Amino acid sequence: MTDLIHPVLLCGGSGTRLWPLSRKSFPKQFVQLVGEESLFQSTARRLSAPGFAAPALVTASDFRFIVLEQLAAVEIGAAEVLIEPTVKNTAPAVCAAALSLHDRAPGALMLVVPSDHVIPDATHFRETIPAALPAARDGQIVTFGVRPDRAETGYGWLALSRAPDPDFSATPQKLKSFVEKPDPATAEALLAGGMHLWNSGIFLFSTTTILAAFQTHAPEVLALTRAALQDAQPDLGFTRLAPDPWEDLTNISIDYAVMEQAQNMTVVPYDGAWSDLGDWQAVWRNEAADGAGVVTMGPSVPLDCTDTLLHATHARQELVGIGLDNIIAVAMPDAVLVAHKDRAQDVKEAVAQMKARGTPQAETLPRDYRPWGWYESLIVGPKFQVKRITVHPGAALSLQSHKRRAEHWVVVEGRAQVTIDTEVTIVEENQSVYIPIGARHRLENPAETPLTLIEVQTGDYFGEDDIHRYEDLYARGLGRKP
Amino acid sequence: MTDLIHPVLLCGGSGTRLWPLSRKSFPKQFVQLVGEESLFQSTARRLSAPGFAAPALVTASDFRFIVLEQLAAVEIGAAEVLIEPTVKNTAPAVCAAALSLHDRAPGALMLVVPSDHVIPDATHFRETIPAALPAARDGQIVTFGVRPDRAETGYGWLALSRAPDPDFSATPQKLKSFVEKPDPATAEALLAGGMHLWNSGIFLFSTTTILAAFQTHAPEVLALTRAALQDAQPDLGFTRLAPDPWEDLTNISIDYAVMEQAQNMTVVPYDGAWSDLGDWQAVWRNEAADGAGVVTMGPSVPLDCTDTLLHATHARQELVGIGLDNIIAVAMPDAVLVAHKDRAQDVKEAVAQMKARGTPQAETLPRDYRPWGWYESLIVGPKFQVKRITVHPGAALSLQSHKRRAEHWVVVEGRAQVTIDTEVTIVEENQSVYIPIGARHRLENPAETPLTLIEVQTGDYFGEDDIHRYEDLYARGLGRKP
Repeated sequence: MTDLIHPVLLCGGSGTRLWPLSRKSFPKQFVQLVGEESLFQSTARRLSAPGFAAPALVTASDFRFIVLEQLAAVEIGAAEVLIEPTVKNTAPAVCAAALSLHDRAPGALMLVVPSDHVIPDATHFRETIPAALPAARDGQIVTFGVRPDRAETGYGWLALSRAPDPDFSATPQKLKSFVEKPDPATAEALLAGGMHLWNSGIFLFSTTTILAAFQTHAPEVLALTRAALQDAQPDLGFTRLAPDPWEDLTNISIDYAVMEQAQNMTVVPYDGAWSDLGDWQAVWRNEAADGAGVVTMGPSVPLDCTDTLLHATHARQELVGIGLDNIIAVAMPDAVLVAHKDRAQDVKEAVAQMKARGTPQAETLPRDYRPWGWYESLIVGPKFQVKRITVHPGAALSLQSHKRRAEHWVVVEGRAQVTIDTEVTIVEENQSVYIPIGARHRLENPAETPLTLIEVQTGDYFGEDDIHRYEDLYARGLGRKP
Repeated sequence: MTDLIHPVLLCGGSGTRLWPLSRKSFPKQFVQLVGEESLFQSTARRLSAPGFAAPALVTASDFRFIVLEQLAAVEIGAAEVLIEPTVKNTAPAVCAAALSLHDRAPGALMLVVPSDHVIPDATHFRETIPAALPAARDGQIVTFGVRPDRAETGYGWLALSRAPDPDFSATPQKLKSFVEKPDPATAEALLAGGMHLWNSGIFLFSTTTILAAFQTHAPEVLALTRAALQDAQPDLGFTRLAPDPWEDLTNISIDYAVMEQAQNMTVVPYDGAWSDLGDWQAVWRNEAADGAGVVTMGPSVPLDCTDTLLHATHARQELVGIGLDNIIAVAMPDAVLVAHKDRAQDVKEAVAQMKARGTPQAETLPRDYRPWGWYESLIVGPKFQVKRITVHPGAALSLQSHKRRAEHWVVVEGRAQVTIDTEVTIVEENQSVYIPIGARHRLENPAETPLTLIEVQTGDYFGEDDIHRYEDLYARGLGRKP
């Protein structure tokens, strides 16, 4: 193939059905759910190969440093990171990516991929794409349809205009129509008929084709998105779409806004494994079960269980299941889920209830990601708190002070540059420094390796709102936080 | 009543059926399983009233400081703490307590009580005891029989010689016989017949009576225990029974050794609530369930559950149950149990399996109790470890050194006296001190309030065997540990 393919990774979503592993502050696509990499990292690596340009990302502001950090860990650079001011579903995200790519490379081919799916055979997936290129070059919107192996009610389906080839090769054909998530009887019929595939949500088209489709089928999405891109602000390498026009956008999926109305739709069958890991039942199904249908992940011990998932996420937390049938158990140090497997969809409702009650675990993890790195609270007592803090190479926290706590910093990995009032010192590994109450101080990592320190706070109040900021590299509000 | 009653609390056991809450290093009786106090504390308070002497305790060496600490917290002093070299079941424990009490107060009345049972109405229980006094004074071994309200197969039963009074008053009568834990059909028959009570394991007798019974029915237990007591070593206020004769004792219960053979057995009915909390099903039954049979303890969220126990032990760990029926879920930061309620007895087997695999959570908690206080590891990285350490007023750690780690101590509560090589300094709250690799050091709490410090260790190895001890107040092995 001669055309460079420009991957666009959609990674702004924050589903709750995989709670407690997936949280609003650190959703599913960034979690090491399968294997050693996050789903987002696997997606980026799947499309990092000859013939593919560097990926563009569309994400939320809260995730902008997570995506860069995770890409850096797999040694992939992003061509562009578009920041959505708020979540507006996939149509505005795809439109913004198309407009931006069209500016840089008019008429280029773009491959839109969700970043939270599992496609175990990356090579096979990449080898399927060339079959879609002629149609995409020819003005078609190409969607990839997955060969179904069960009557799944949790996916949308694609109706074919003719039966797939007997060997299920990636022969393009005209897409007849989209089918909404079916009821069980309909799903059985779709599977038995052999004329339907699962809708993977993966698309290939040229920027010219998709922008014309937006112009025809969703002109207001195109106009508002174009305005948001025109007024976008560059920020530390990110492109922040302008909130003003963006907020007027309807929350609408690319399927509804464009695909279901377009006439130039082509489908390419894909016969490899694929899962959207949409809920815990899907995770259970995706993993290799033993003869009794039991899947264990992490340090977990099943005793006489059947058709059960035991998922312990932390090496120092043991999960034991006894006599369980069709149970999902997910253990984390700050939250545990135990659900009947048939009720996997209701995790969403439980999270909504916790959120309504103000339970922090509903949306956040102990580890809190910030522009400069991350921290986690290890223990909070009435008169002290201990945090672990990691600062990226070259990064710096804001110049700040606290009214109600002093801080002891012990550098345990790397090297810190510490400003206290007017004095700047270097604190080496295995050295410590003391920040009195009220002192203006700043923590920086001047080195090329991560800095880890243990912060022991002493005082009588440890809330994040006892931070008075004087200077901040990351354009966060100065003065008293939040 | 004129006779002082001497409570003897048996608190050396370490059952595993309430894992993960109950561990070998910190078993059930010391856990806050019901209400604000541990079962042991509730037991001690139940018998702390006019007419009762200070309690004697029989426990294991590992628990000797836990029992004192927990008694101090409820402001009860122990008359004596007997330390069993190894666990030998209840017969040797009762025999040792009887011999020791007989030395101090010949012929005194002793009330033997397990320390891990629930008796919610302490007043009613105490008011039942006078009914047993005449028989006990008269040379009877009095056992208390609990009015059964279900066909329980997990308890032993007591056969009466005549029906209880219609109002179930505490009228003593001759005990006909002991009945082993019955099968379900037998249990139904025992319940329906109205001539059987549950065996509570609580006994009242004089030291003269029980020592005569040992002499008659278990003379070798009496002889070996007497020898172990004669050679006992006093140790910081504890009485350490001599291991040499003690190790020759058979592991045998007081029921088997004496009660089931004695002819002078009297039973006093008790019509209040009682539970041995023998497994998680018993805990579920003991708590007030909602209309659907759901019991929640701690921060737990049930959604459409029935006949289920959700027990979250820590304020910062949320437990969510969805669509569960007859499930026990117990969440702790380092271990989670999910079991079908009918399989509650198999927790023991799961713990045995974990122990066989060397999983530390099988027997120990993150919090490790020592003579001088306790510590817990908050985090372990490749190059650092952070511990929280609490030192009792007046207590001191051994003089020690480490070959492979330096330590930073930040005092967050109280005041520390720190010896480093030849220098002794006082470290106040919100001050820190540094212990270089290889330095001989000692931590002491010179104050009258507990000392809490955060220890940040840096180095390349953090095992407990990198402690070289030079001096130790607590008679632990000097030189290299374990």
